[in-house]
Amino acid sequence: MSSYVHGYHSREHERLQDQAGTLVELLHGDTAYPAGSTVLEAGCGVGAQTVTLAARSPQARITSVDLSAESVAEAERLVTDAGLTNVEFRQADILDPPFAPASFDHVFVCFVLEHLTDPVAALRTLGDLLKPGGTITAIEGDHGSAYFHPDSDAARAAINCQVEMQAAAGGNALIGRELYPLLTGAGFDAVHVSPRMVYVDASRPDLVEGFTRRTFTAMIEGVREPALAAGITDAARFDAGVRDLYRTAEADGTFSYTFFKGVGRR
Amino acid sequence: MSSYVHGYHSREHERLQDQAGTLVELLHGDTAYPAGSTVLEAGCGVGAQTVTLAARSPQARITSVDLSAESVAEAERLVTDAGLTNVEFRQADILDPPFAPASFDHVFVCFVLEHLTDPVAALRTLGDLLKPGGTITAIEGDHGSAYFHPDSDAARAAINCQVEMQAAAGGNALIGRELYPLLTGAGFDAVHVSPRMVYVDASRPDLVEGFTRRTFTAMIEGVREPALAAGITDAARFDAGVRDLYRTAEADGTFSYTFFKGVGRR
Repeated sequence: MSSYVHGYHSREHERLQDQAGTLVELLHGDTAYPAGSTVLEAGCGVGAQTVTLAARSPQARITSVDLSAESVAEAERLVTDAGLTNVEFRQADILDPPFAPASFDHVFVCFVLEHLTDPVAALRTLGDLLKPGGTITAIEGDHGSAYFHPDSDAARAAINCQVEMQAAAGGNALIGRELYPLLTGAGFDAVHVSPRMVYVDASRPDLVEGFTRRTFTAMIEGVREPALAAGITDAARFDAGVRDLYRTAEADGTFSYTFFKGVGRR
Repeated sequence: MSSYVHGYHSREHERLQDQAGTLVELLHGDTAYPAGSTVLEAGCGVGAQTVTLAARSPQARITSVDLSAESVAEAERLVTDAGLTNVEFRQADILDPPFAPASFDHVFVCFVLEHLTDPVAALRTLGDLLKPGGTITAIEGDHGSAYFHPDSDAARAAINCQVEMQAAAGGNALIGRELYPLLTGAGFDAVHVSPRMVYVDASRPDLVEGFTRRTFTAMIEGVREPALAAGITDAARFDAGVRDLYRTAEADGTFSYTFFKGVGRR
């Protein structure tokens, strides 16, 4: 087990919030829950998605939970600061949730399955919380979807450090491509998965800054110390990879990455 | 130099035409040229794109050229059989085109730059054929954009045989991601590149058949003999890779691939 977990360190907080800002429309644009519906956000972390979720479904009643009490407190602060009043927070384990079966109309789970050893079991557990006909929406990235110009072996190796660290912690940084079999395997019906590709070149300066530099490359940089400690890379090689990732943010560079969003029905 | 070239063998004909059928809307949906405008299709091959191009811009006057007289004849047959009358064909080298400068309102070039040793020089040459304010539209795939579930080292190695064979022939099978720097580097203005991602899972049976099996995997299979002859793989390893690509077309598999479309202005 690695001690490296997304979202629990303060630099990670900033990164996750930048990411949420840049990618809001891409990821959330087609998610709005009806007035009066009850929504469980399973694994809200520090609230990076919660603010958007709550703002886009102002008449829905959202319950956001996370295993970390510290994260829940941070998320609650964020939501309160945004003037939103339709979210109730609770510290809870989504693998052993303190809710009765069929308690919610909808479940929303974003950047969480990637950290779980058995995502199908988690999806089944969350599915049991849904009323019949209720929906689950899952969003995940996939680090194997990252490619760029100029291409670079060192950059790919640095990304692979993140993939390996996440795998060593029981997770899967390549999970986006698997959403369809995971959701169908967990028994959901009418599963529909759609890719949300981020393509960045110099004609899109907001994404150069907000995605290539401050989201993706910053995330890879964030794994430097644990990856060195784990002995899966050396400093020179890792730093060359990060330099090459920043290189793709220059005027003649391009960067591609894809998130996947899946919706299924109980 | 390898003797392997896309589009000149009859199995390749079928593949390219399946590909065109499945992907028409994705690639051509936003290309229609005005009545009376003159359009050069540079490198029409066997006409896989020509029929669509001509049908979607019925009032434009299209000139389609290819280096291979045999391909031009095949393309002309295809267009005639489709009842289209707005295309003129000509055998010509797009690197040394038999047209006066500023002869065309628009240039369309699809799956051609990937085969050229100096795509920027080719784009400059084509740009010279444009009237001021005219546009160039370039479409290319990128084999590094292919990823799938279940993931497979052997499948990635088989794809890499195609990438290596194309590189040995002076081309670049990873060119899609480079369209932006290529077009800007060739002096075009207002360059806009957009990715066209094909995502396939079992809920999209037409794409499972038409793209994963009959387009992408068939293309990789097509490189088997030249790759074995070149000694860059062995039969067992290559065949395992192809098997694993077909495996991604099963009920729990997924497949992703991205084309890039770039438009620039002279």
